[in-house]
Amino acid sequence: METLGVELGERSYPIYIGSGLLDQLGELLPSLSGKQVLVVTNTTIAPLYLDKVMAGLQGLQASSLILPDGEQYKTLDTLDRIFTALLERRHSRTTTLVALGGGVIGDITGFAAAAYQRGVDFIQIPTTLLSQVDSSVGGKTGVNHPLGKNMIGAFHQPRVVIADTDTLNTLPERELSAGLAEVIKYGLIRDEAFLGWIEDHIKELVARDPAALTYAIRRSCEIKAEVVAADEREGGLRAILNLGHTFGHAIEAAQGYGQWLHGEAVGAGMVMALDLSARLGFVAPQAVARGREIIAAAGLPVSGPADMTVATYLEKMAVDKKNVDARIRLVLLKSVGEAMITADFDQSLLRETLHECTTQA
Amino acid sequence: METLGVELGERSYPIYIGSGLLDQLGELLPSLSGKQVLVVTNTTIAPLYLDKVMAGLQGLQASSLILPDGEQYKTLDTLDRIFTALLERRHSRTTTLVALGGGVIGDITGFAAAAYQRGVDFIQIPTTLLSQVDSSVGGKTGVNHPLGKNMIGAFHQPRVVIADTDTLNTLPERELSAGLAEVIKYGLIRDEAFLGWIEDHIKELVARDPAALTYAIRRSCEIKAEVVAADEREGGLRAILNLGHTFGHAIEAAQGYGQWLHGEAVGAGMVMALDLSARLGFVAPQAVARGREIIAAAGLPVSGPADMTVATYLEKMAVDKKNVDARIRLVLLKSVGEAMITADFDQSLLRETLHECTTQA
Repeated sequence: METLGVELGERSYPIYIGSGLLDQLGELLPSLSGKQVLVVTNTTIAPLYLDKVMAGLQGLQASSLILPDGEQYKTLDTLDRIFTALLERRHSRTTTLVALGGGVIGDITGFAAAAYQRGVDFIQIPTTLLSQVDSSVGGKTGVNHPLGKNMIGAFHQPRVVIADTDTLNTLPERELSAGLAEVIKYGLIRDEAFLGWIEDHIKELVARDPAALTYAIRRSCEIKAEVVAADEREGGLRAILNLGHTFGHAIEAAQGYGQWLHGEAVGAGMVMALDLSARLGFVAPQAVARGREIIAAAGLPVSGPADMTVATYLEKMAVDKKNVDARIRLVLLKSVGEAMITADFDQSLLRETLHECTTQA
Repeated sequence: METLGVELGERSYPIYIGSGLLDQLGELLPSLSGKQVLVVTNTTIAPLYLDKVMAGLQGLQASSLILPDGEQYKTLDTLDRIFTALLERRHSRTTTLVALGGGVIGDITGFAAAAYQRGVDFIQIPTTLLSQVDSSVGGKTGVNHPLGKNMIGAFHQPRVVIADTDTLNTLPERELSAGLAEVIKYGLIRDEAFLGWIEDHIKELVARDPAALTYAIRRSCEIKAEVVAADEREGGLRAILNLGHTFGHAIEAAQGYGQWLHGEAVGAGMVMALDLSARLGFVAPQAVARGREIIAAAGLPVSGPADMTVATYLEKMAVDKKNVDARIRLVLLKSVGEAMITADFDQSLLRETLHECTTQA
């Protein structure tokens, strides 16, 4: 087991990464504020891991809530189901929520913990590669709105994150690829050497070699933890974690949440960000080809949906959280391994990128 | 105009109190993150003050959203209406929300600001005595759930609070009394001399004498600001601000939100807290009579609804946020002017208090 500390002052917390961690859950738990625990999970994960988790919570007043599986349920209505369960079961302010599942479960459970009685503790047990490398680090929680993804939420840090790599054995192939999109992202925005390592080990990663996955998770969490520690509330640097996400969110919003996986949309979105970075002269055309190749090798799409128009992209991108006074801001690459955020670019080049990365599909 | 600073480190903010402040709104605004502003108000307040506020926001991209009036609309559904308006109007993360109204508008708008894009700025313009002395100080925001009041929310501090005493001229008599309940509370929990001042000036307060109201608001805000500054996240001391509230919330929940005004329920609840404090031997029986007298003089009820049973109280009180692992905790008085919080009391005495303060109605 590896332990990584996320340093955020009094909100610091450890991330445990390794095999067999669910079997030693009791030892990994921090001291809780009270005895009440609600485990929130979904219909896919519950039959696989819920019994094991409940067994690890022996001695506590633990119960579970099983939600339907899918991004389309990441809504205020589902959030309300968690509040109703907590209130029906008389959970007080000293309760602890446990998020057992992927990013959707983590985001919605984390937001429920942030808002229930104005804030209770929560623990993340991410069971997908995406959530292990991304959404359980950094304290971002929230739900979607029909008019925009992740538009409602809170910054709320978990007490601990427990990433058991064994849970990846039951992960569908598409979701493994979606997780690799974020792993590749960390290389692109912050660490060219890590990108090179990924290129050298992409076959092992796709084949779920445990050692390769463990290293990829560890290094991804490290990079994200560094960025988050430097900028907890997303004033500046942290925005670079959104490479490809503004494009990706537009794809997800236009297709209806749940059609494209988040990581798939980010895969295509990163190609768009690279393409625009090349058009602006920041990176060489070869960098676009390099990015496209590794993204494709991870089993991800390298262009947007064939039927999505430039106008649709621009409309959806106009509601992105990074925008200032309604101007579109994007994360682009200054070079491979170094990201920047800017609203200062030629809009016609953005249109060219969107056109190029759609008609190529 | 008087200015009071609430000291909370980088979240410190000023409270302006005085007559004619809405006419000088432009000068009182802090520097905003962006130009977008959404004023959230209700159908009662809009015809009275919205034009004046919009005029004070000249030069900004300001628009308004008018919600129905009443505690029964303090729900997740109404919150969603604010998010929809913000997204339809393309408000970015640099937007500022303005809460123009009483406690319900302040609480729901503040929570919308806390959760929209994980947190944007907001400004409070409280237009009721209750919200001027209470709900616009301290950063508590939130909505109700059918199973419990204020169960969903966030701590989110305003950038500035602007309390224009002129707005109290249009306040219905019942709501003035409800505000006085909180004013009396500050005397009871923290400042016996202030309680004495209230007793000496209760007729002027009920008659809306501007000088008396200004002093009462100022001193109430000061006491609350002291308590909040000492305990921003309600770990300990801050809970004393809930004197009478656990009983009061039970009344509101049992009657259906909106039947009893919050301050009316708190008025009766404070008598219950005094009664139990006397039964426990903390205060003399005369203190109960004294409290009952000033609460009645403010035009408030001194006992609960005649048809509410002890069992109903206990059921509703069991979901209070102050409880630890499902034990009822209450704010009681050690002496007049000094409050304490405890779960360590004889439950049969609580039943006696509930019985006494109901059948007396």
